[in-house]
Amino acid sequence: MSDRRTTDNVSNRIGTFYGIGVGPGDPELLTLKAYRLIRTLPRLYAPVSRPGAPSYARSIVAEYLDPGRPVVELPFAMRAAPEEMAAQWRANAEVIAEDLRHGRDVGFLTEGDPLLYSTFIHLASAMKEVCPEASVVAVPGVSSFQAVAAAIGIPLVDRDERLAILPASYEELDGGVRVREALERFDTVVLFKVASAIDRVIDLLEELGRTDRAVLVTRCGRPDEQIVRDVRSLRGRKLDYFSLMIIRR
Amino acid sequence: MSDRRTTDNVSNRIGTFYGIGVGPGDPELLTLKAYRLIRTLPRLYAPVSRPGAPSYARSIVAEYLDPGRPVVELPFAMRAAPEEMAAQWRANAEVIAEDLRHGRDVGFLTEGDPLLYSTFIHLASAMKEVCPEASVVAVPGVSSFQAVAAAIGIPLVDRDERLAILPASYEELDGGVRVREALERFDTVVLFKVASAIDRVIDLLEELGRTDRAVLVTRCGRPDEQIVRDVRSLRGRKLDYFSLMIIRR
Repeated sequence: MSDRRTTDNVSNRIGTFYGIGVGPGDPELLTLKAYRLIRTLPRLYAPVSRPGAPSYARSIVAEYLDPGRPVVELPFAMRAAPEEMAAQWRANAEVIAEDLRHGRDVGFLTEGDPLLYSTFIHLASAMKEVCPEASVVAVPGVSSFQAVAAAIGIPLVDRDERLAILPASYEELDGGVRVREALERFDTVVLFKVASAIDRVIDLLEELGRTDRAVLVTRCGRPDEQIVRDVRSLRGRKLDYFSLMIIRR
Repeated sequence: MSDRRTTDNVSNRIGTFYGIGVGPGDPELLTLKAYRLIRTLPRLYAPVSRPGAPSYARSIVAEYLDPGRPVVELPFAMRAAPEEMAAQWRANAEVIAEDLRHGRDVGFLTEGDPLLYSTFIHLASAMKEVCPEASVVAVPGVSSFQAVAAAIGIPLVDRDERLAILPASYEELDGGVRVREALERFDTVVLFKVASAIDRVIDLLEELGRTDRAVLVTRCGRPDEQIVRDVRSLRGRKLDYFSLMIIRR
């Protein structure tokens, strides 16, 4: 890569922006491609919820990182107003674009898969405005729901079955209709972002008689992984953001 | 591992049965864990549709295989009668159980993720009957729908969006109601096993005015990958079994 950048005719080459899915938590569930990019890209970025906060994506790959090449942290406040979030995506895209304009290939670390509820989606879309000439490449990763199914030993879907994946945290918007619909019509339901809606989700599961088929998993594959099969015990509890619920028919 | 097996006190240890997701097609999208197991397990099995037919899962990892340690092929006829299929899963589980009873750890290669529409689900369930004392471990893999989203450059789901994953091939059973429902209610719909139902799916997409948002991908990440954005052109065509359609709202 550095060889190419030192030759004159590619000195104004624009770098490639990689959204690297680092998988659900177990460092061994990284793909070979993500591993190669993390070991070789000249610059890596990782999201944090505020300056100085730990990065979950970075912690997953910590053992693979070259200590001499620090990961640059980019703050993404997740509960800001929409305009503020758009401004922050643009500002972060601008930081990365500076590298790309210098011909540097850049990786953005993101937990799970970069195209499933990931900050990368917004960053890639901001990059199209900020630096439309950059190539943007998503490197797929194992998503947390896949690791959770493996950890608790259930199939996700088989034969003619249907799988619904949705966030629980927007349920106040529609009185829980969407989670209810998914539970009534689909064989397996995966609820992302369940932490902030846990009491409403438990109410609904109890009403539908489905609490016994629900399992909550937090930080699947990390040393502090938690698997909770009695989801009723979660009522009123403050849960980690990286919590996910699977409900099998 | 061989060290352990030569000591007396573990000579009647039962092996572990690993369902190894080898990812969607690109050999670099294997996980580090799958790679390690493929390189070190004393025995690997792969499914074939009939004796002598090529194994898709095996072809994905061909470059990582040790030529001195052949992959044992197990026939799974996919269009047999239910009782015949159950007998075949049991017979194949019995073959693998022989290894497990000799203390050998065994890997079963499966494309994509082992818990998403995979032969492994049936094999693991047959193993519980045939050799209930064996440990069964699923090693998650990147699924084809994730690679397809990355290849065609679309997000799968973001913010409050919902994703539905279902097979199209059972649509004759219910007059297409399930695919229609998914298209009407979900932001992104992934149709597995679309090959045998392609004409009905195109009819439905045309009726709902959604053909322009549909993309079909065959053998994503393989040298013979095909991406078809004009899905109407597929009418009446015989498609590869490993074809998948994504429809974004």
